[in-house]
Amino acid sequence: MSELRKDPVLDRWVIIAAERGRRPTDFEAASSSDDHGPCPLCEGNESKTPPEIWALRPRGALPDTPGWQVRVVPNKFPALEIQGEVGRRGLGMFDLLNGIGAHEVIIEAPEHDWKMSDGPPERIEQVLLAYQQRLTDLYRDARLRYVVVFRNYGPQAGASLRHPHSQLIAVPVTPKRIKDKLSVARSYYRHKERCIFCDIINQERALGDRIVLDTAHFVAMCPFAARFPFELAIYPKRHEHSFALLDDTRRADLAKVLYLCLHHLRPALGDPPYNYVINTSPNLTPRAGKPDYWGTLHLDYHWHIEIMPRVTRIAGFEWGTGFYINPVAPEDSAQFLRDAIAEERQAGSEGPLRRIASA
Amino acid sequence: MSELRKDPVLDRWVIIAAERGRRPTDFEAASSSDDHGPCPLCEGNESKTPPEIWALRPRGALPDTPGWQVRVVPNKFPALEIQGEVGRRGLGMFDLLNGIGAHEVIIEAPEHDWKMSDGPPERIEQVLLAYQQRLTDLYRDARLRYVVVFRNYGPQAGASLRHPHSQLIAVPVTPKRIKDKLSVARSYYRHKERCIFCDIINQERALGDRIVLDTAHFVAMCPFAARFPFELAIYPKRHEHSFALLDDTRRADLAKVLYLCLHHLRPALGDPPYNYVINTSPNLTPRAGKPDYWGTLHLDYHWHIEIMPRVTRIAGFEWGTGFYINPVAPEDSAQFLRDAIAEERQAGSEGPLRRIASA
Repeated sequence: MSELRKDPVLDRWVIIAAERGRRPTDFEAASSSDDHGPCPLCEGNESKTPPEIWALRPRGALPDTPGWQVRVVPNKFPALEIQGEVGRRGLGMFDLLNGIGAHEVIIEAPEHDWKMSDGPPERIEQVLLAYQQRLTDLYRDARLRYVVVFRNYGPQAGASLRHPHSQLIAVPVTPKRIKDKLSVARSYYRHKERCIFCDIINQERALGDRIVLDTAHFVAMCPFAARFPFELAIYPKRHEHSFALLDDTRRADLAKVLYLCLHHLRPALGDPPYNYVINTSPNLTPRAGKPDYWGTLHLDYHWHIEIMPRVTRIAGFEWGTGFYINPVAPEDSAQFLRDAIAEERQAGSEGPLRRIASA
Repeated sequence: MSELRKDPVLDRWVIIAAERGRRPTDFEAASSSDDHGPCPLCEGNESKTPPEIWALRPRGALPDTPGWQVRVVPNKFPALEIQGEVGRRGLGMFDLLNGIGAHEVIIEAPEHDWKMSDGPPERIEQVLLAYQQRLTDLYRDARLRYVVVFRNYGPQAGASLRHPHSQLIAVPVTPKRIKDKLSVARSYYRHKERCIFCDIINQERALGDRIVLDTAHFVAMCPFAARFPFELAIYPKRHEHSFALLDDTRRADLAKVLYLCLHHLRPALGDPPYNYVINTSPNLTPRAGKPDYWGTLHLDYHWHIEIMPRVTRIAGFEWGTGFYINPVAPEDSAQFLRDAIAEERQAGSEGPLRRIASA
């Protein structure tokens, strides 16, 4: 089993996922997969994955058979395992836990070559539904304190399989980066009795120059302190702490926003590698009957999605300081995307959301 | 001039280094350089760089002429500029500054193909001396609150020029990552009246399994919560807050340790791309006659060097949580390096530090 270790200075957790018996220089093999054989995520190859956890398939159809639209399976090479005790303990000054958690793959489409940036939004809606279902289910397990849902697109962004997929990892501690966000949001709320994210959204909508999309229920913007060219953040307009609270109407709206953002990154950056991450609340389920520390989080926190095109390199300066250098002003990125979306709206006989085979 | 912007939630600074008049999709050009012509960092091409700031060259020789061993020049495409006012200001909820600072290139050798991992340590000593000189000089400028010295090796680690070089960036604010380290070190010191880094060094030396080298003045180890395979940290045994305090003896010892670490990463990982970063104290020079907030830092902080081989990918999970997945236990990395160093010691007729042309 893997181990979770905390850096004693930076409060940063690391999953040590070393397999016994491997030489330390053999680790490259661990990340690769069935890349040379038939794709294990394709329709028809259901037996090549561990048994499915959830799927969107016709009512009454058997699990692990063809005919599905979206399918969730455990990762074949999981960083964390669901069975066992968390086993929090010390080693002198150090802290460690057992590698308890979950590592799942959300297979977004039966076809190997579907691209999320091709849409249509209705298919992205189904993927979002899968995220929600898994998030809700995993948060029933009080050991799992945080679930991160993310998508790696392109090898440079860490995708080891080409077949369209997202992943989720559930961890038994609240990560530092999330705690940092939560703490700032909480102290802002205590000070102002307002949500810091709502205030950011309001200010950005008033200023306008970093807004990319402003729909009935969502705002997409290039953040004021964007780290990367064409970095995007998507916020729900309604103040709410958890992604799992989306209803059908708002899920459909989010799917359109996500589609438009990803679709228009393609002409901007030439089908760039990217990561997106859902920043939702931690698990508020009480442990041992005690209310969770973050129990009043519905006041403080506001979930959002970050989209990070991976077109600049992270080097010594970024590692050493946490500073980033962004060669493109977010106002310019936003304007480019706004113009591209407006152009499509004018040109398209089928409206802004028509399917485009290639950009 | 570029702009420094702070993320209002994460307290993270970003340098927006957008050049006026460029299209937002043209940014790739900004990072490239004279890669197609003759190398601007080679001996004989001194006129191709901005005038030198510092150099190690025979006494009496003219600046910007051949005959140097190490040469420091301003970056031709600086992320920050030295002239001007910091101009701290707000934009509604947001904070920004002018892009004041310094961005310098430490040219480590006159030869295009020298590798630091080839040694000999005496040459690395000269590079360390250059770092020290520049750090000391830049900290005379009270506007510059932090200087990070780093080395990017290999394109995947962000090196855009092949010629052996390091860089330094001086910024007008103390970065969040540094503040996090300083704050933890300070609160630990207040609590225990001991340095947290000294305690880590003592514990690791007692345990032994993550120690790679233990010399008269330095300890190199694979950290307990290493993020990457073969990640290394080098600590001075003497408690001191600033890299600039090295004397000749200890600088020579550090050069040997750095050489051995980098040299033995080559057989382990096949000449891997890597970043190393010097984590030194911020500038303690008072501003406007007032003592710096970190004024008692010589008690709390303990400088160190982090070496990060770039052989695993940073993807959505890492971005979303600040967690890392390391497929190699640091104990295994350390043992591999210890064995390699011991083997060289036994085999080498000239001792462990003989020059090796290729590994």
